[in-house]
Amino acid sequence: MPRLIALYNVPDDADAFDTHYRDVHAGIVARYPNLRDMRLTKPVGVAGRDAPFHLVAEMVFDTAADLDAALMSEAGAESARDLRNFAGAGVTMFIAPDEAYA
Amino acid sequence: MPRLIALYNVPDDADAFDTHYRDVHAGIVARYPNLRDMRLTKPVGVAGRDAPFHLVAEMVFDTAADLDAALMSEAGAESARDLRNFAGAGVTMFIAPDEAYA
Repeated sequence: MPRLIALYNVPDDADAFDTHYRDVHAGIVARYPNLRDMRLTKPVGVAGRDAPFHLVAEMVFDTAADLDAALMSEAGAESARDLRNFAGAGVTMFIAPDEAYA
Repeated sequence: MPRLIALYNVPDDADAFDTHYRDVHAGIVARYPNLRDMRLTKPVGVAGRDAPFHLVAEMVFDTAADLDAALMSEAGAESARDLRNFAGAGVTMFIAPDEAYA
């Protein structure tokens, strides 16, 4: 199943980030049409290194068309606008399609 | 299930990268003890942007202890050494543990 993945850089104020994500942003994302699953994980660094990101969000859809439609939806636009409210440290987004690499 | 995730930066020579990954590196990773699944995806950029990475590799384990043991294994060490043979553009690694963020 295709995924929209967001890698959030480590914020200056992790508590403020977490509060906004949980109380505001997660609710916007939950309104993506045909969102099948949302996985939020807090990365851990490898071999004693710091984690390279603060939060990894994976939004799972049944089809690539559903994922594209979610990005173009009202909730998708609102989600993009909301980034300025908590993700000032930066976020890297990409789509992990169903097609295998190898 | 916990995952070890590697985000490979876009290489200068994508064909050389792909050939080495498929013919050499994937075989090393496949020897990680207790590796349950390996997912390789070629990221797609969002909203017409370039993909931020060339390849996303997700190595799935049953437990965090299995993941740690794989990193410490002979195959884990060989895999780390092999990065210099194809991943000169850089790679970002982290662990996505089972524990949910929110």
